[in-house]
Amino acid sequence: MSSEHDAADYEVTASDETTHSAWDNSLEPVQTVEPGDVVCFTCEDSTGGQLGPDSTVADVAELDIDRVHTLTGPVAIEGVRPGDVLEVELLAVDHQGWGYTLVLPGEAELGVLADEFPEPALYVWEFEGGDDGDVARFANGIEVPLDPFPGIMGVAPAEDGTHETFPPRSVGGNMDIKQLTAGSTLYLPVAVDGALFSVGDGHAAQGDGEVCGTGIEAPMTVTCRFDRRTDLSIDQPQFETAGPFTPTGRDEPMYGTTGIADDLLTATRAAVRNMIDHLVDERGLERSEAYVLCSVAVDLKINEVVNAPNWVVSAYLPESLFPADRRRST
Amino acid sequence: MSSEHDAADYEVTASDETTHSAWDNSLEPVQTVEPGDVVCFTCEDSTGGQLGPDSTVADVAELDIDRVHTLTGPVAIEGVRPGDVLEVELLAVDHQGWGYTLVLPGEAELGVLADEFPEPALYVWEFEGGDDGDVARFANGIEVPLDPFPGIMGVAPAEDGTHETFPPRSVGGNMDIKQLTAGSTLYLPVAVDGALFSVGDGHAAQGDGEVCGTGIEAPMTVTCRFDRRTDLSIDQPQFETAGPFTPTGRDEPMYGTTGIADDLLTATRAAVRNMIDHLVDERGLERSEAYVLCSVAVDLKINEVVNAPNWVVSAYLPESLFPADRRRST
Repeated sequence: MSSEHDAADYEVTASDETTHSAWDNSLEPVQTVEPGDVVCFTCEDSTGGQLGPDSTVADVAELDIDRVHTLTGPVAIEGVRPGDVLEVELLAVDHQGWGYTLVLPGEAELGVLADEFPEPALYVWEFEGGDDGDVARFANGIEVPLDPFPGIMGVAPAEDGTHETFPPRSVGGNMDIKQLTAGSTLYLPVAVDGALFSVGDGHAAQGDGEVCGTGIEAPMTVTCRFDRRTDLSIDQPQFETAGPFTPTGRDEPMYGTTGIADDLLTATRAAVRNMIDHLVDERGLERSEAYVLCSVAVDLKINEVVNAPNWVVSAYLPESLFPADRRRST
Repeated sequence: MSSEHDAADYEVTASDETTHSAWDNSLEPVQTVEPGDVVCFTCEDSTGGQLGPDSTVADVAELDIDRVHTLTGPVAIEGVRPGDVLEVELLAVDHQGWGYTLVLPGEAELGVLADEFPEPALYVWEFEGGDDGDVARFANGIEVPLDPFPGIMGVAPAEDGTHETFPPRSVGGNMDIKQLTAGSTLYLPVAVDGALFSVGDGHAAQGDGEVCGTGIEAPMTVTCRFDRRTDLSIDQPQFETAGPFTPTGRDEPMYGTTGIADDLLTATRAAVRNMIDHLVDERGLERSEAYVLCSVAVDLKINEVVNAPNWVVSAYLPESLFPADRRRST
């Protein structure tokens, strides 16, 4: 446990009493803290512990989707009012040594190519220390560098009632911004007294886009400092970050595929499909493996969105994922 | 002139005889080369020289849009056939010391926020050598690092007739992929005998997205080696690159804004609008200056495109653009 965890003013550990699976501004806070306080959240994976290191694809059919996502909280921050901005300084984010990536089509229709990947799949990752930090091992000698972050951080919405956790909202939530790692600061527009902050959906790694619908899903400990900001006025979340800005957090040779189409989502699907074809044809992966690798270690960029009627979206695959003798000579 | 230029097998310099402003597979090649040959293209800016270092916004109204984009070529590569892939290895890309950024709303409707910026604008940049390479100077002490690339590289389409240069196509064209700098290799699907390659629309810098519709537009020299690839099968362009993967080509602290909406284009517009608000409110820029800066030095990312009905697009602003005393303490 790092010194940041030791220094926390409060610990909030996931349990039946401290978790919830819908946004709701009537939830009682599990803890009330002051601006400036540090809270250490111990979070379950997004399914709330329904999957573990020994799970198989057979367990996927048994998942209770109503428990996804299991969020820890809410924590109330005293004196924070609607119209304020909640500052969330991420001091430490730590995984627990394992994770999984899930392809969940069918009714959930999770994934940008859900219609092309109708079979559920589960890949369980073991994490190891590497020369440049922790890595997760995959097929064909591939190693994915880890830089853990919470996929969901948000505050309660202004609208009464229960609201699903899947869609991200203007008050935050399921944003899956992989740049919100330890050292980053998130700004959230506050809609209710006390803000009512919750966190979960830990990802040990994720590509920009999270294209198969999940990253490397992992239980996680998140330590953050809360502050009230009355000098900012924002409608949607903003943040400060020092990265990662690539799948590996390093600038290095990458292979790129484009998707060129008259709709950004169609262009995105094409760029991902072209990258999957590349991974199958040139790198020897199975199609479902390629889809999983794109979701955890390939980044999407919008190259141009101004040359109507066609836009360009590209997908970027780092060469260093592969063993040295299987890289392209860029 | 660099050694790569000296080593070119052919020089193709923009003139009335060597440029065109529409894709057309019936154009006579201005040069025919062999696979393996190196060609040095000297290209005008995208308007074909209608704007210069002394131009003002008054000149924008006089622009003949039919001459945009002015492309140099086409060059035929002997023995290349439909179904082959044309490999274009970028050996050198050099600007000529100046450039401009144009906001061109009205009939052209150029720009992702064209409806919110109805006035034309022109910013002429002078380039200077900096500690870490060339930079372009802007308002408020801002310096934009340069990494020049051709916004347009493409081959002739299969379909007969003339085709506008604005939309990118499956055979390439106006892709505005800023990662296609010197050292990168582009793969283009070939549709006609000889491929008929053309190049232009030089950008000395551009953010991923090119949101105001132009980068730092600049006349440019592009030296590349052509090869025929019969071992690849691609439907849209692919490439190898070593970056830049951020606006500055470096990992560094950045300020991020989100756009969260149920359509990727709406989310993109929101992320850009929120970044413009930040640049105006927190960094002291005029709104039109902020729009220009977003287009040349802010990157767009798709963070997630799987949590229906809402997607997340973010915009990233590097702190090092600003003088040291005006950076945020990240």
